[in-house]
Amino acid sequence: MEPVRIGIIGLGTVGRGTLDVLRRNALEIERRVGRPVRVAQVAVRNPARLAGVSPVDFAVTGDPFALVNSPELDVVVELIGGIEPARELVLTAIRSGKHVVTANKALLALHGNEIFEAAQQQGVVVAFEAAVAGGIPIIKALREGLAGNRIEWLCGIINGTCNYILTQMREQGWSFAEALREAQALGYAEADPTFDIEGIDSAHKLTILGAIAFGIPLDFASVPVEGINGLHGMDVTYAEELGYRIKLLGLARRVEQGVELRVHPTLVPARHLLASVEGAFNAVLVKGDAVGQTLYYGRGAGAEPTASAVVADLVDVARTLTADPSNRVPHLAFQPEQLAELPILPMAEVQSAYYLRLQALDEPGVLAQVTRILADEGISIEALIQKEAPAGAVDVPVVLLTHATREGRLNRAIAAIENLPVITQPVVRLRLENLDGLR
Amino acid sequence: MEPVRIGIIGLGTVGRGTLDVLRRNALEIERRVGRPVRVAQVAVRNPARLAGVSPVDFAVTGDPFALVNSPELDVVVELIGGIEPARELVLTAIRSGKHVVTANKALLALHGNEIFEAAQQQGVVVAFEAAVAGGIPIIKALREGLAGNRIEWLCGIINGTCNYILTQMREQGWSFAEALREAQALGYAEADPTFDIEGIDSAHKLTILGAIAFGIPLDFASVPVEGINGLHGMDVTYAEELGYRIKLLGLARRVEQGVELRVHPTLVPARHLLASVEGAFNAVLVKGDAVGQTLYYGRGAGAEPTASAVVADLVDVARTLTADPSNRVPHLAFQPEQLAELPILPMAEVQSAYYLRLQALDEPGVLAQVTRILADEGISIEALIQKEAPAGAVDVPVVLLTHATREGRLNRAIAAIENLPVITQPVVRLRLENLDGLR
Repeated sequence: MEPVRIGIIGLGTVGRGTLDVLRRNALEIERRVGRPVRVAQVAVRNPARLAGVSPVDFAVTGDPFALVNSPELDVVVELIGGIEPARELVLTAIRSGKHVVTANKALLALHGNEIFEAAQQQGVVVAFEAAVAGGIPIIKALREGLAGNRIEWLCGIINGTCNYILTQMREQGWSFAEALREAQALGYAEADPTFDIEGIDSAHKLTILGAIAFGIPLDFASVPVEGINGLHGMDVTYAEELGYRIKLLGLARRVEQGVELRVHPTLVPARHLLASVEGAFNAVLVKGDAVGQTLYYGRGAGAEPTASAVVADLVDVARTLTADPSNRVPHLAFQPEQLAELPILPMAEVQSAYYLRLQALDEPGVLAQVTRILADEGISIEALIQKEAPAGAVDVPVVLLTHATREGRLNRAIAAIENLPVITQPVVRLRLENLDGLR
Repeated sequence: MEPVRIGIIGLGTVGRGTLDVLRRNALEIERRVGRPVRVAQVAVRNPARLAGVSPVDFAVTGDPFALVNSPELDVVVELIGGIEPARELVLTAIRSGKHVVTANKALLALHGNEIFEAAQQQGVVVAFEAAVAGGIPIIKALREGLAGNRIEWLCGIINGTCNYILTQMREQGWSFAEALREAQALGYAEADPTFDIEGIDSAHKLTILGAIAFGIPLDFASVPVEGINGLHGMDVTYAEELGYRIKLLGLARRVEQGVELRVHPTLVPARHLLASVEGAFNAVLVKGDAVGQTLYYGRGAGAEPTASAVVADLVDVARTLTADPSNRVPHLAFQPEQLAELPILPMAEVQSAYYLRLQALDEPGVLAQVTRILADEGISIEALIQKEAPAGAVDVPVVLLTHATREGRLNRAIAAIENLPVITQPVVRLRLENLDGLR
């Protein structure tokens, strides 16, 4: 089938990420959509943005208005940010009958009502998953996944810069100024961090979340906002002593008189899941009347996490353009003729780390025999603890953690260990996963 | 517009929940879909299931095959569970051109390939968000929200019964048998808990998750499964001492030779977010190549959480039947003409609890003056701590937590407190949210 033709305006961090993801996962995406999704044109003000892009297998223009007016494109991806010319570009793309994907929360929070009305009249989609909480599909969860619920409230950590600063204040005992300086040095905060630290970026996102949660027009100007720039380190410490952590939350809540939408530093109970969301991560907690509380968590910024959301929107639009409505999303996510016949490995071939508990007679040389057997199978030990024998017991528990190994090997080692005369019971074997990369 | 006409087979826990949610949120759902979603017929074997349903404003039949063949219905909701007659009913509904919504993970894990092929040929949707992780929209996240990613691995706590038992073993120091008995007494475990505790239910769900993550056919028979029924309390304790918690995980991972799909008790680091998922909650962690790790968390079972997913599927189908494709999901979740004009409250009218820090001269009577002012405004104090003055300071910090109050009142109290001669600096005021209901 003919490719879906994409035009991208802006090749900054997210634009480059989008290009990378669309290329790297081209086959995966085609298997899902049923036709290729191809970048046909890119608009960049500064041609230096193209450095390192290879091959440049798309048209390049310095004039974004030429791109949005081009008859050769199906979808425009707006990634320049800011209000103008982004607003005019998006409206022009809509008027010329193109679907639009954007990550521009400021634009939508301020001009979304006008933009969505234009799109509605023109019969095109303006998709904006990337505008809130980066790669976390929170827009889709609220608009579709929780569509059976009356949403009662939601609250979110939706600015990673602030969350990183707050984490550093708490963990390092730093002042706000110190934590901000470090965040800037590490690239977690902009040179001009105003929009982040004053809560404005969070308020843009909350405006969007509140509108789709409650079905109200976008109204950024009415959202009370307080940032983290006035926060004292001593209050972070005292909050901690009282069992709370301070997070910059965006809150939306139905109340009798209307709705609350507000952004401010907030004490949340330290044992609450939301308090465990640290560093540059985002999370949104949603309370629906039927589902109760659900939480969505992941990276809220960065090239590829944001690109993940942009490309998900592109897949959504492409599926809409491609399939008859009832087959818009294939049952198993990929087109039926595109299912792969990957073998499911038997357990003996699986790699894992392990927890082992042996029950052994309390004699000298036991550990030497056990560790010899493991070494012979090439299994290395991460930790070994010999426990005290319970009163009256003839054997003592020995607990071992191994590094990752093939389960077939481990099973052979266990059989050999169970054959040792000093081992009194079958070995207990549990798998262990470190799930690296998330704190 | 004409209502979308629903037929429900089975009025057990989830069936009743679905009926309740569709009724309670009828208006909210109509605002989202653009037309009413109405239960037109229900099939129940035992008419006693109708006790307490009022009004019975739908047709009732004892013959589910009459329902799936009825020309009066657009969508069939299958909620009887088990393999037969559910399989035959679903296939018959498909053949008669109806869309199907089901929560039946066993049916899909075992016969999904056949069912989806039939649906594909007939051009109808079989929607199954409720089959995995209850109200958490994980199917939608994987099939749509993360569609730009190559999914590398996922793992989930997808059986609340097992998770509840494991939590009780860890927190109470109980044996497996003791924890199971309590779970049965409280209704968290069935009288016959085999499917749960042997990991079979988790494996059904994992089979579905693995298929949509990697684009492979459903193949339950190849999934290695180990339950929690052989687990010793002492291993739960030793794992804890080593910094781990034991969870029953379903794991799916791409490896060089194919894919791993496996269910077994697993040690995970205690500081990992997944380890904090306790009791009857579910969570799924997904690693995509672009987005990194994302987590989805909520109630994995129960009448209304599962109904939340069933109704979301109904909304999806109804939107497909109703809208032109590009307006399938309204931009702000609700139909544009259905947006509500709810006022956003100014902060003075918002209710919140507060953290206050005063800096006061270390004199007798300070607390009496402060607490008097708060009492006069009707603000009650939850905690009050007078800190030590730092060396050389003339004033001491006094930290207060208040119960919920209107911010306007609090601001008046703060103004009065700041007027006290013993108060040396502006009062620090932070909001506090307890986010009740989630542990």
